[in-house]
Formats: sequence, C-alpha cells, structure tokens
Amino acid sequence: MAKLIRKNYLMAPGPTPVPIDLLLEGAKDTIHHRTPQYLDIQNKALENLKYLFQTKNNVYTLAASGTGAMEAAVANLVSPGDTAIAVNGGKFGERWCELCKAYGTNLVEIDIEWGKYVRVEQIKKELEKHPETRAVFTTLSETSTGVVHPIKEIAEIVKETNAVLVVDAISGMLAEPLKMDEWNIDVVVSGVQKGFMMPPGVAIIALSEKAMEIVENSNSHRYYFDLRAYKKSFPDSPYTPPVNLVYQLLKSTDMLKEETIENVWERHRILAEATRAATKAMNLELFAERPGNVLTAIKVPQNVDGKGIVKFLRDEWGVTFAGGQSQLKGKIIRIAHLGYMSKFDVIVAVSALEMAFNKFGFEIELGKGVKAAEEVFMKEGV
Amino acid sequence: MAKLIRKNYLMAPGPTPVPIDLLLEGAKDTIHHRTPQYLDIQNKALENLKYLFQTKNNVYTLAASGTGAMEAAVANLVSPGDTAIAVNGGKFGERWCELCKAYGTNLVEIDIEWGKYVRVEQIKKELEKHPETRAVFTTLSETSTGVVHPIKEIAEIVKETNAVLVVDAISGMLAEPLKMDEWNIDVVVSGVQKGFMMPPGVAIIALSEKAMEIVENSNSHRYYFDLRAYKKSFPDSPYTPPVNLVYQLLKSTDMLKEETIENVWERHRILAEATRAATKAMNLELFAERPGNVLTAIKVPQNVDGKGIVKFLRDEWGVTFAGGQSQLKGKIIRIAHLGYMSKFDVIVAVSALEMAFNKFGFEIELGKGVKAAEEVFMKEGV
Repeated sequence: MAKLIRKNYLMAPGPTPVPIDLLLEGAKDTIHHRTPQYLDIQNKALENLKYLFQTKNNVYTLAASGTGAMEAAVANLVSPGDTAIAVNGGKFGERWCELCKAYGTNLVEIDIEWGKYVRVEQIKKELEKHPETRAVFTTLSETSTGVVHPIKEIAEIVKETNAVLVVDAISGMLAEPLKMDEWNIDVVVSGVQKGFMMPPGVAIIALSEKAMEIVENSNSHRYYFDLRAYKKSFPDSPYTPPVNLVYQLLKSTDMLKEETIENVWERHRILAEATRAATKAMNLELFAERPGNVLTAIKVPQNVDGKGIVKFLRDEWGVTFAGGQSQLKGKIIRIAHLGYMSKFDVIVAVSALEMAFNKFGFEIELGKGVKAAEEVFMKEGV
Repeated sequence: MAKLIRKNYLMAPGPTPVPIDLLLEGAKDTIHHRTPQYLDIQNKALENLKYLFQTKNNVYTLAASGTGAMEAAVANLVSPGDTAIAVNGGKFGERWCELCKAYGTNLVEIDIEWGKYVRVEQIKKELEKHPETRAVFTTLSETSTGVVHPIKEIAEIVKETNAVLVVDAISGMLAEPLKMDEWNIDVVVSGVQKGFMMPPGVAIIALSEKAMEIVENSNSHRYYFDLRAYKKSFPDSPYTPPVNLVYQLLKSTDMLKEETIENVWERHRILAEATRAATKAMNLELFAERPGNVLTAIKVPQNVDGKGIVKFLRDEWGVTFAGGQSQLKGKIIRIAHLGYMSKFDVIVAVSALEMAFNKFGFEIELGKGVKAAEEVFMKEGV
C-alpha cells in the first residue's frame, strides 16, 4: 500500500509551531551577553512584554521553562508557614499546590472537579476564612482541561485583601484577554513556547509593586529564582541569559506588538469558535464547562480507544494533538489553536479527526466538521 | 475586523514546497567544487538520478532552470536545417517550438487544442510524412493545461524511426510514471523545483546512446549547454556547479530512492484523484481531457473573476495556486499536488476553494469537496 508524505502538524498546547522567520532569528551569531549590543536587544524585548502583559510593571525573563517562573512566584512570595490559597482544577493547578508544599507553605487548596471552573465565591469564602492569606495562586487557562477560569472577577475580590493574586498564564497569555494592571493582577507568569510562537526555554514573570514588596521580605530558600537579583540587575540579567532565544523573543514580541494585542486575542477567539463549532457538528462533546481559546478538549466517545487514536494521528498522519493527562488519560483529546496557527490549521485538525474517528469506529459524516468550521470563518469574514 | 495569521501554502506547479531538512541541507558550508569531497557528493546524486529516471544512461545536471535543459536538448540534437517534430498543446509545447525556431530547425509543429492530448496517430502521420526527422519533442505533463500526453505509446512509434524522442518531464518527472529505458525514450529533461522538492536552480538531462551520437555530430552554435563538454568531464562538471543545490539534490534523491519510485508515483496519483473527486463534488469542471497527477486544472465558472480569485487566495489567505497562462488567463485555476505534499495539503486546497468560490459568487456547499477528498483517502487507506 502506498504511503503518503507525512508532514508534521503540531497541534498540542505547547510547544506550538514556530514560524521560519523566528527559527532563523535564533540561528544568528551568538554575541556576548555583557555588551551594550545584547542589552539593547533584551531591553527592547522586555519593553514589548510590558505592552503584551498590559502592565507598567517590570517584566522579567528567566532561562527556564514556564514551571521555573511558577517556582519563582512561590519561592519569592510565600515564606515557610505562610498561608496561600491555590485553585486546583487540573494538572497545572496541581502544580501550584506541589510548589507550595515544596516550599513549606500552609496551603489552602480549592479543589475543582477537572473540567469545571472555579467560582469567585469559592475564592471569596476561603479568603474570609483565612484573612492571613499571603497569596492566591490561580490559572488563566488550565491546559489539562481546556477550562478558562474567571480571572478578572477573581482579581476584583483579591484586590480588597492583603493577599496578592498570582496567575499562571503560561498557555493562556495572548490567547485569552488579560490586562494585568487594569484588572489588578499582582503576578503573571508565562512561557514563550505557546502564544509567543517560540521554541521553549524562556519563562516570564511580571510583578506589581505590592508583590515586589513581599518578594523583598520573603525568607524562603532560593537563589537562581531569587527575584531580588533580577530586580537589581534589571533590565540586565543576573545570570547568563539564553542569548539566541532572546533574539527570537524580540522578534516575536515585535511581531505581536505590531499586530496589536486586541487582534492577537481576537484571532485566537475565532479559531477556537471554529473548532468548537466543528466539534459539535461531528457529534462530539466539549469537555470543558468554560472552554477557552487556547485549546479545545473533546470527550472521547465510549468504545473509542482514546490513547490509540492520538498515537495513530501523530505517528501515522503527523498530526500531534495532546491526549488527556493523569485521570483524563484516554478520555479527552486536546486540540490546540494556539500561537502560529492559520484557519487552515483548524481545517486540517478537523479533517484529521473526521477521518481518524471513522477509522476508530466512531462514525462521523465526512466533511461535516469542516463545513461547520468554514461557516464560522465565512461569518467572521476572515 | 480581526486578521488571522496567514501562512503560505505553495500549491502552484513549481516551485513547490521544500521540506525544512532539505532547506537546511542547502545551508551547509560551501566547499570547493574541484575536490574529491564535492565530487563524491555529485557522483552519488547522479547515480540516484539514474534510478529515478529508470535508466542506465548518464544523467547530467546543469546549473540552470528547466528551460536550460530544454535548450541543451535542442541545441545538441538538431543542427540548423534539420527537421524536428514538436507537439504544441500548451505553453511548454510552445517552448519546444520557440527553441527549435531559435536554432534554425525545420520545424514540423503538431498543434493540439489546449486541454487536449496528442494522439499517437498524429505523431505517426508526421513521421511518415517527414522520414528525415531528427527528433520528436514532446511533453510528459503539459503544466499549462494539466494534460498528460501518452509518452509510452509515442515512444513505441518513434523507436521504429531514425528520430530520437525527447520528453520534457520538468513537471511530470516523479509525479507521472516514466521509465526511460524500458519505454525507449532517448532524452528526458527535468528540473528540481517540482517533484524533487528543491529550490530551483538545477536542470537535469539524460540521453541514450542513440541521442549521444547525434550530439557528437551536431553543428549548432552552443557552448554552456554543449553536452559534449558535460560528457567529457562526467561525473565532474565542466563549469562551476551549484554546490549547495547539489547537496540538496543528493539528499532529495536519497529520500526519493529510499521511498522507491513506485511509491513516489503512487502518492502523486492518490493526491490527484482526491483533488479530482473534490472538483467534481464542488460542481466544478476539470479542464484537461487527460488530467495527470502533477496538477488539476479547474475551469473557472462563468461570471467568476478567475484572475481575481487566484489573486485573492494568494494575497489574503496565503494559498498560491496558478491561474491560466496566455489564452487561458482567467479561465482556469491550476492546483498542484506535486512534490512535498501531504493529504492535508489537498484538504487545505479544497477548503480554500470552497470558501473562496462562495465569496466570489459561485455557490458551493461548504464541506462537500473536502468530503469527497476524504473519501478517496479513506478508500485508499492512507
């Protein structure tokens, strides 16, 4: 039997596809990091990040993956024995809890059924019960479930307390609206291998003045992630920065800034809507109660081998979706529409699902999902 | 209104998309061409080409685009005043005629209505009328119309005469079955920016012993394209070869050889069938009487702006099809499924057409073409 050419379609929620222009930017001559030439590049990238985070605060980059910035938030904001609230509604809410425990935090965990979003009232209740709370750790887009939590509303509650609000926007940044200053968010962490369309390797963290004050007075053990060092050398770096990735970060943020943050949000919304419309047209169910624009989590129908179909799509057809993690293994398929994605990427994703589900015993009328996605694009005039 | 990310989908019949691995191969250190290191690379590439051309004859590469190899064929095979027959059924058949005229050939032109294929009887008749004919110039895949001429059958006629059969397989090579030795073809010319998945810059020509004898005795004015010089220095090059392109040629031909020529032909056939099925499902008409696997030419329906839709697809959505050339300007759209193309490229092409035709006033039920293409892929089990 003939074998067709298998191209790679990276449709998992990070790393996401990298435009060739950005890849080539990373192939430029590595210069020394303690030079005015390099500092100028880093400084410009950091300025761009302020705009993208919608903040006047300093934004810091760390040579780390996103989890590094999460650790920096915990290590710098809660001292051993401090009380912190964390929303745990998936793999990445769970990571906040693990980090808090690793740093000896007195943790108040808000457990949310995976797939559901946290209600503002739950946060409010815990804050009232624990007025000593130092920080509230939340997630913008819970990558493991596709849920988006109501960060703006949560921020309105937290700002009335002494606690700081920390938002993991690693996958959510750029795909979901987020206005750090206007919404009164104290700390936002992100990574570059998602909406920024970059290869992994840079974590980002922005902190309000209120947060920076806590940082100065925290007594957790920390060194590489000690944000006091980053503040002191800002906009320079205390340790060797990932020079070539910072070239890419400047180019990426230049591109995003030129596009405008509003358009970046909007294009993610349209791709997500098309994917959701296609899902319904294929008689598949959305998993998330409040699905966002980062990814669409689809429930695997009964009697379909959920792990098998994801593996098949990746290995045989080159289409990489993410399956479910932990308790959701084999139960959901996560289709990212994040970062460097055109409307035809959504078409490819849906077409791949139409054909693969039929192969795996779940009947879908061919073309029906694609039709629904195309209708959304036609309606949006894109 | 939001603007989505526009990726580039190169779906014209050359240049075709280049895999990143091949692009990077061209970015390797340029070495000197008069070294055993370089010669080894070129020699291996030429050996691979013999397999892909299905010939034991020498295959020569020229630093030129495909037209250079066409000129080499004319300049070396017909002396001024010699009689040659050329099949003119499109832009590239026309090119044979122009070349013959430029070299003072006594040209017998077989004019074919664009979109139709040449009948073997037409060739036979002219050969009988002109027994002095030195060469018959034909085209495997006439890129301007999407027609494939019956080369195997033509070769059966020509081999009984003193004439040599010259086949322009620039776009057809690899997409259409072609067996140089078995079919008794004397000269095959090709280029690398098509089925070879390479950037343009290398032309290829293979010649039988019967053809090489004519070359030795031809007295046309020629220098750069004088194949006697290429034969003399073979497998080295008489003039500076395009070193980095030859790196890519070795990698490309290694990949194709490993895949096997039969699979290369077969995957082109499947993509073409899916595209034709989609065309019919969209109630659009095929232009070619004998459509091939290089490209599908679709008639632009009455009242649709054929030039406008091609321009719109390219400039607004990043999908580059070819329009019609010369007398076919605005009348056809040519969708290539040539070279580095996956089944999802066909899906993208069809989806783009479904949406764009609706925008341009020709109603197509969304998803219908995609469905037909998917059905072909499911049936073929790919």
